[in-house]
Amino acid sequence: MVNILFSAQPARWEEFRTYLHAAFDKAGFNYTLTTEFPPEQVDYIIYAPNGPVTDLTPYTNTKAVLSLWAGVESIVDNKTLTQPLCRMVNHGLTEGMVEWVTGHTLRHHLEMDRHIHGQSGTWLEGAPPLARERKLCVLGLGALGTACAQQLATLNFDTHGWSRREKSVTGITCHHGNTGLTEALTGADIVVLLLPDTPATTNIINADTLALLAKGAVIINPGRGPLIDDAALIKALDSGTLSHATLDVFRVEPLPPEHPFWVHPKVTVTPHIASETRPPSASEVIAENIRRGEAGEPFLHLVDREAGY
Amino acid sequence: MVNILFSAQPARWEEFRTYLHAAFDKAGFNYTLTTEFPPEQVDYIIYAPNGPVTDLTPYTNTKAVLSLWAGVESIVDNKTLTQPLCRMVNHGLTEGMVEWVTGHTLRHHLEMDRHIHGQSGTWLEGAPPLARERKLCVLGLGALGTACAQQLATLNFDTHGWSRREKSVTGITCHHGNTGLTEALTGADIVVLLLPDTPATTNIINADTLALLAKGAVIINPGRGPLIDDAALIKALDSGTLSHATLDVFRVEPLPPEHPFWVHPKVTVTPHIASETRPPSASEVIAENIRRGEAGEPFLHLVDREAGY
Repeated sequence: MVNILFSAQPARWEEFRTYLHAAFDKAGFNYTLTTEFPPEQVDYIIYAPNGPVTDLTPYTNTKAVLSLWAGVESIVDNKTLTQPLCRMVNHGLTEGMVEWVTGHTLRHHLEMDRHIHGQSGTWLEGAPPLARERKLCVLGLGALGTACAQQLATLNFDTHGWSRREKSVTGITCHHGNTGLTEALTGADIVVLLLPDTPATTNIINADTLALLAKGAVIINPGRGPLIDDAALIKALDSGTLSHATLDVFRVEPLPPEHPFWVHPKVTVTPHIASETRPPSASEVIAENIRRGEAGEPFLHLVDREAGY
Repeated sequence: MVNILFSAQPARWEEFRTYLHAAFDKAGFNYTLTTEFPPEQVDYIIYAPNGPVTDLTPYTNTKAVLSLWAGVESIVDNKTLTQPLCRMVNHGLTEGMVEWVTGHTLRHHLEMDRHIHGQSGTWLEGAPPLARERKLCVLGLGALGTACAQQLATLNFDTHGWSRREKSVTGITCHHGNTGLTEALTGADIVVLLLPDTPATTNIINADTLALLAKGAVIINPGRGPLIDDAALIKALDSGTLSHATLDVFRVEPLPPEHPFWVHPKVTVTPHIASETRPPSASEVIAENIRRGEAGEPFLHLVDREAGY
């Protein structure tokens, strides 16, 4: 019998329980799934932020903590966590992210807002340049960043990618490290942020890095709120260094109603929808990792605790 | 010596002459390019609508009429045209069209306008479905329709295509003929129009075909204005059968300022920019067809006069 503890807000339990049962039944192991267990009896913890489990010390027999979300910043630095930690990586997450990023990139590339806003009866001549004439830069080449960069490359954007450690991705000009960051951002027309939230990435978009971009560049952030120095961003929008910022993530969510982003004419706020965990496919990923744990096979999407993702 | 007549509006001559000379010089044939010639001395006519040539009878030695545009409806029914007629098909045209169609399809799929318009300070929960949950239908599987359908299929849309004659395109569910049109449109969430303007396609989007679509569907027309029965379209928008129409082409262009499309809250007007002929690459296509004509090789993109495209 495998004992599985679900630790998240109650609304999540309602959202996931049916799909988790279906996925576990299909995977074929004997299990008990519930929201309360004596800690020492728990084999696996399904984890999302703001649930009951914060101190992992008593979970002495737990084989893995399985995150429901892609971002693990709420738990990765937890000093009581000694168990393996796995991130969520799934089909639906990646597809949703690729759709959102491709859509908003094309929206800015095509300068759609000129036509969407205020149909004034004026026939505005002039087509935008082709995508191949725009330098596009994706910061972060994990599963999501790589998928987005590869999709955008099929549209012929001059696609650059940056990661902290050296990587190679077909069709993408890859850069890495501090020198690579300058190369990747210099002259970029559109920048997409898909980095994890770690001490090394906090405020990676700041006055210095913004100054490298092409005049009138666009920032698209579906990654994590702290990647951007918000004050520097607003200053760059106001001075015309940037023409727009489309943001899906924020330091505080929901974004407070009084936050200046809401009323800034050059900022688009979307409510953390770029990539939502979809319960059916996420449940299958969780089931597969439990099956692996029970079979003694390596876990999928194991987090490197030192790197923070 | 090859005599080449440029017949289009004067603004086009200014726009193209340099690029045509460069392309012809590169192709390596001896030529004269001008906007006036005794008709019987003309070997090739470069053609765009509203230029001086309307009666082709005196052009007795002309080997081909080479259209600067993809659409040839202004000349294909000209009774005096006995010479071969070639359409424009080029890289830039296709890429521009794929970008515009993919961008506006994603805009509607992601329901972007909810967030682009009126940043009200309200965090609107709820992610859109995945692309794989939307039925997308492209009417017209020529060079442009096929390229758009294939790009959208890479985003996992449930992609259907329709053509008058039977076709097969990898990754697309293909339909053809009258029965196929009903299959293709039934339950479609997003419909993209990329048909030529012929008697058989006039008003193909009408009250009957609109009634087949999913409730709240979207029409995207970067093809030709007469494909849509405008009155039926407005009625469907007003009744909620359709949620939006994004239109790049119109029966009269520029769209007159008093036209109801400009002020309709569910219509987006773009000024025939989805795919513009780009002089550099278009000039190379013209040069290649003249080279072929002089070498006795078959022309590229020859129009089937009976089909009208």
